[in-house]
Amino acid sequence: MTDKERYLDELQHFLRIPSISTDPAHQPDIACAAVFLRDKLKRAGLRNAGLIEGCGNPLVYAEWLDAPGKPTLLLYGHYDVQPPDPLDEWISPPFEPTIRGENIYARGAADDKGLTLILINAVEKLLHQHGRLPVNVKFLIEGEEESGGRHIEEYVAAKPERIRADAAIISDTEMFAPELPTICVGLRGIVYGELHVEGAEQDLHSGVYGGAAPNPIQAIAEILCALKDRDGHIHIPGLYDRVQPPSEDERCAWAKLPFDVEEYRTKEVKVRALTGEPEVTLFERLWARPTLEVHGIRGGFTGEGAKTVIAARAVAKLSMRLVADQRPDEAVSQLEAALKDVCPRGVAAEFRTLHSAPPSLVSTDSRYIRAAAIAMTEVFGNETVYTRSGGSIPIVGLFDRYLGIPSVMMGFGLPDDNLHSPNEKLFLPNFYRGIDAVARYLELLG
Amino acid sequence: MTDKERYLDELQHFLRIPSISTDPAHQPDIACAAVFLRDKLKRAGLRNAGLIEGCGNPLVYAEWLDAPGKPTLLLYGHYDVQPPDPLDEWISPPFEPTIRGENIYARGAADDKGLTLILINAVEKLLHQHGRLPVNVKFLIEGEEESGGRHIEEYVAAKPERIRADAAIISDTEMFAPELPTICVGLRGIVYGELHVEGAEQDLHSGVYGGAAPNPIQAIAEILCALKDRDGHIHIPGLYDRVQPPSEDERCAWAKLPFDVEEYRTKEVKVRALTGEPEVTLFERLWARPTLEVHGIRGGFTGEGAKTVIAARAVAKLSMRLVADQRPDEAVSQLEAALKDVCPRGVAAEFRTLHSAPPSLVSTDSRYIRAAAIAMTEVFGNETVYTRSGGSIPIVGLFDRYLGIPSVMMGFGLPDDNLHSPNEKLFLPNFYRGIDAVARYLELLG
Repeated sequence: MTDKERYLDELQHFLRIPSISTDPAHQPDIACAAVFLRDKLKRAGLRNAGLIEGCGNPLVYAEWLDAPGKPTLLLYGHYDVQPPDPLDEWISPPFEPTIRGENIYARGAADDKGLTLILINAVEKLLHQHGRLPVNVKFLIEGEEESGGRHIEEYVAAKPERIRADAAIISDTEMFAPELPTICVGLRGIVYGELHVEGAEQDLHSGVYGGAAPNPIQAIAEILCALKDRDGHIHIPGLYDRVQPPSEDERCAWAKLPFDVEEYRTKEVKVRALTGEPEVTLFERLWARPTLEVHGIRGGFTGEGAKTVIAARAVAKLSMRLVADQRPDEAVSQLEAALKDVCPRGVAAEFRTLHSAPPSLVSTDSRYIRAAAIAMTEVFGNETVYTRSGGSIPIVGLFDRYLGIPSVMMGFGLPDDNLHSPNEKLFLPNFYRGIDAVARYLELLG
Repeated sequence: MTDKERYLDELQHFLRIPSISTDPAHQPDIACAAVFLRDKLKRAGLRNAGLIEGCGNPLVYAEWLDAPGKPTLLLYGHYDVQPPDPLDEWISPPFEPTIRGENIYARGAADDKGLTLILINAVEKLLHQHGRLPVNVKFLIEGEEESGGRHIEEYVAAKPERIRADAAIISDTEMFAPELPTICVGLRGIVYGELHVEGAEQDLHSGVYGGAAPNPIQAIAEILCALKDRDGHIHIPGLYDRVQPPSEDERCAWAKLPFDVEEYRTKEVKVRALTGEPEVTLFERLWARPTLEVHGIRGGFTGEGAKTVIAARAVAKLSMRLVADQRPDEAVSQLEAALKDVCPRGVAAEFRTLHSAPPSLVSTDSRYIRAAAIAMTEVFGNETVYTRSGGSIPIVGLFDRYLGIPSVMMGFGLPDDNLHSPNEKLFLPNFYRGIDAVARYLELLG
């Protein structure tokens, strides 16, 4: 059996374990997936491989620290997967990995079992070839990424010394396009909360009181419109003050990305028109500008038919996406101050934060980023591009906050990998090239 | 037993029947209440008393038509009641009528069993005294007023000849204040519908697409704010064109109503501030101005916690209250046209009407109104006031549409009667004076 055959064999084994973290019925599979990884890490030649039990699904840890004077890297992945439904849309069963063409189809193929194995196989490859590594490594692999579990957060906060490192490598992102090696250098942060608006003490009859009684849902509409205009400009004083425009290098790089905006609009977003700040380019709007978004409004009558009620109170779910160098706490204060200014007559409005995460941005000048770009360019044969993501990866914020280290997001998935959807897949050539690229990266850093 | 004792005895009997029309378990009670009324009408000396069976709960009909050359009046009431819950807030059980002080407490006491019996007792009183009536009368009493049933609507539409009359008397409203005889001469109409707004084909991740994807809930907010400003002015072109300002007489009358706006704000509406068009007086805002009100917004995420979704579509429940001489169909067209103008980029918006009712307004110069005012003034010893109601009573629109007759709304309930709430009551002196006032009214018309 060649190395490649063994890599594939192990990947298939891993993918057969239905380690769905959102479903308690799959707890035995969660344990099974964690044990699989621990044993794989042992076989790979890592030391102190074991499970860290805690308040949720176990963390899998392993290390190799015999390169004194060399950097220490923290390698992150997750072994849990999304639920596979709707099942009837899968061409082959989600937990029976099936190869069609150059892709392997299974739940977790790309998110994140395949990519986690890339990191382990890269280390294994170097250990088998040289009996040692050019750098120090610590693996920390979690089993609650898809279920919002707190285990890793509590662990990172409680034991920062145990996982101290110079940089983290996170392989849970994707390449911008096939054959285009991609490093994600920025993530937006988020403040998510509820806007509570109260009018009368009790629901009112809209016939009897309409024309004199404040309407909390109308008030929410007025607040939303006062805080953001139709062109997507947010009118929260001070909110843009810390926003760092992308560097000229990044702007040039984004302009050169292979991208068809009409195809994006019609095939990916599927909308009549794209919106947002008209004077800002699309990638900057998605990656480097804050947003204010309403996710839903609760209150009043929404059932079938008609009810002529003026709601006593209503709650809107709101989020602000934040970009470097915005700070969640400051953004909340700014929102609260703006709210005071725009709150309509007759109602009281209050914002209550549910959770927040800071934005992150790593300079493309960082040695950890540059080495990753060189390694990926060598292996894929194309210039590595730098992108950002509009979403948030909480682990990046955790590593930044508790360890003070940058995260290098090397992506090996593809945009059509169907993450969280039926027929999730991994492009197998990327699986093998990813192993080579990460191995090369460690060599370059060593 | 005096007449008064008998009136009270019958009222108590009627109130013991839990004729809740919204609960199918109470169908036998519905039948029982209808039969009670039919027998009461027979005993009162009316002719052709009987139940009209149809698509829903029976209508109760009776007539006395032996006054040739005299006007014919259609007397309306309803024998069904609202559900009594929350039961634990009742001081005495809702279907065990209990007298405390000068009030009788029971579900349906004011709405509308007591007021329906006022009409029948007034006719009975005249028939017993004189053996005949000064006018012709037809009773039409329904059992689905609280459940939105269609029986009476279908009947009025199908058999207008059978109930042809010169005016209708509706005793289902209240006096503006104790001791203040009140006739309601105007009702607002309504258009109730749903505003459907569609953005992307599927829900989107607010991190990945926020800043470029249209948000249907934000779009609804923008539409609501474009259609109505913070001062309650509706910006739907043409909507105010047919709005008739109240006559100088009505304005003067309203200004003289005993009313404390601070008490209304703090004790009745219970709000921080009253809202609406600042240059329009409160009664005019409530009774003689159209409104645009949002009742609820469905779509997106409203559960516990956080979900970073941009909804694909959202639906707002909206109503417009209309005043004389606005027309529901025209108002819908005006709303639809305005919607086209204000619909934000990237979404499609459509209004779908669920139901509508025209406004109604009877001139205080009508002989049927004037006679009612004189009769009530005589009996109550205070000048009768004219008010309107901001709500809609569909039966008034039906009588107007199919019979072309005005409705005289003589109110004998009081503002604190707790309609639709626990501890509903009827002020017994008004029960007896109401009988006298209606009898006097029929004499004046004869």
